[in-house]
Amino acid sequence: MDITQLGDRILSGDRRALARAITLVESRRDDHRAQAASLLDHLAGAGRQALRIGLSGTPGVGKSTFIESFGMMLIGQGLRVAVLAVDPSSARSGGSILGDKTRMERLSRERAAFIRPSPSQSHLGGVARRTREAVSLCEAAGFDVVLIETVGVGQSETVVAELSDLFLLLLAPAGGDELQGVKRGIMEMADLILVNKADGELKSTATRTCADYAGALRLLRKRVQDPPGFPKALTVSAVEEQGLDAAWTEMRALSDWRRENGHWTANRAEQARYWFGQEVRHALLAQLDTPQARAEMDRLSTAAAQGQLTPASAAEQMLAFLREG
Amino acid sequence: MDITQLGDRILSGDRRALARAITLVESRRDDHRAQAASLLDHLAGAGRQALRIGLSGTPGVGKSTFIESFGMMLIGQGLRVAVLAVDPSSARSGGSILGDKTRMERLSRERAAFIRPSPSQSHLGGVARRTREAVSLCEAAGFDVVLIETVGVGQSETVVAELSDLFLLLLAPAGGDELQGVKRGIMEMADLILVNKADGELKSTATRTCADYAGALRLLRKRVQDPPGFPKALTVSAVEEQGLDAAWTEMRALSDWRRENGHWTANRAEQARYWFGQEVRHALLAQLDTPQARAEMDRLSTAAAQGQLTPASAAEQMLAFLREG
Repeated sequence: MDITQLGDRILSGDRRALARAITLVESRRDDHRAQAASLLDHLAGAGRQALRIGLSGTPGVGKSTFIESFGMMLIGQGLRVAVLAVDPSSARSGGSILGDKTRMERLSRERAAFIRPSPSQSHLGGVARRTREAVSLCEAAGFDVVLIETVGVGQSETVVAELSDLFLLLLAPAGGDELQGVKRGIMEMADLILVNKADGELKSTATRTCADYAGALRLLRKRVQDPPGFPKALTVSAVEEQGLDAAWTEMRALSDWRRENGHWTANRAEQARYWFGQEVRHALLAQLDTPQARAEMDRLSTAAAQGQLTPASAAEQMLAFLREG
Repeated sequence: MDITQLGDRILSGDRRALARAITLVESRRDDHRAQAASLLDHLAGAGRQALRIGLSGTPGVGKSTFIESFGMMLIGQGLRVAVLAVDPSSARSGGSILGDKTRMERLSRERAAFIRPSPSQSHLGGVARRTREAVSLCEAAGFDVVLIETVGVGQSETVVAELSDLFLLLLAPAGGDELQGVKRGIMEMADLILVNKADGELKSTATRTCADYAGALRLLRKRVQDPPGFPKALTVSAVEEQGLDAAWTEMRALSDWRRENGHWTANRAEQARYWFGQEVRHALLAQLDTPQARAEMDRLSTAAAQGQLTPASAAEQMLAFLREG
């Protein structure tokens, strides 16, 4: 594959080239990894930036409908929208991999939209890296907004927050008691809480839930990256396409303020530091993941189990094995 | 230091040599680490095994008093007892480091007892490794029982369970609601639950609490390493020295059964495998912990933050730096 040519096609906004490049960054083959790295280096030079929006919400909250309605609204304003997912469970459940395009039927037919399901990896670390690289590819392809969605399994919110400029939390209307169900750590990540399903019978419940969360947000510690009034809670109806424009106005106000006050750049720099550290640790541990290393680990593990070597001596031998590589 | 001589003194039961050897395994200096490894290899040949008893309990449950009373009882039976601690927080609080000997005043004066506070490390990984090696040293020095205590901060119970032949959970008398406070994972580790303070006004509450926990234990999944009737709940009074002998009888019954049925050996083999894996991962990541590596990490992290390198390329350069090391 000619990497320079592929890069140029991505920069020209070619969706097929983008899809192919994402497949390349998702590959675990060594030669593909090397090609992916040189492609990303090539594209980084273009310096294009999208607004990266992280989105979390438990199943049933209407996330797909929200992404579809919100994405269609953005496209209606002339913007190009990419949708990526971080779902470490999808490799096992299989569900969302096939489902992503069918559950966003209108959006997936738009030329200004690009939808890519979560890479099928069981390790969150692998999903994180590949999603991060897919985000960079979408930016290089000239998308204005990249939505990064997660189902909120374990640590996946942290991954999405470390990939995003803004973090949205989508919630369902609920009684006051259920407010407790949202973990404090997730609340603290949110720039905007959107209470969905503010329509029909649930409209008044949604309004009350929104007020509850607005109150809860006011109790959180003030963050330097927030202008007055943020983080904020709003009601939306993805089904009736209500409140989406107001939510978008808030997102733009927040991101403009952060750009003007240096927080946007500082946040991206901090994220790059974070991912660099993660990459280094991941690469160090990945040395254990070759067939040769696994065989040697097995051998030494058995020697330690049988008391022929102390765990420390066995570990030293393993390190020597890796050094000789 | 003459390592063979130090080893021989430990094998003869010399407490000062033991204390000195533990200081050696706690050192982070490379030459000390190498000496410690060769000392441990030397001592492993002797093949001595103590009964390693893990003990967890929240502050205020009377853990120190229990260890003192229980330890004195064992010494009264002619046994030699070592007490070690896993407390990753002690480096910060400073509390238990100085406090260990004063809070077990009688035991610390006994020649058949050896008390060693938790190594002052902020990383649980470091504490775990050093405690594991200290356990081996105590075994080589001929102690019959090694008590490994933890305050139950985060993952420290797992560490202690992976170092122990038996795991005790010390609890205070409490209402039924508070039973929920003990995490299921901790309950599942326990071989014996001891409800302390079964004396004076709390005696009947302790009996009821014990029955509650006995009921809860029966609901847990049956483990292959348990004979009929285990895990068990008992009441004790550390202050009045009641029930300690009965608890010791249960511990011996359990460990005898496990020895006879191969579970003792299988468990220690499994633990050796576990610690080998931990050691390898720890050693791989420890490559980042030298002044040179930290300086290079800083340089590349800044390059990634400023966008001069992608996180992946910066990580690749870091790995190359470590390989050339």
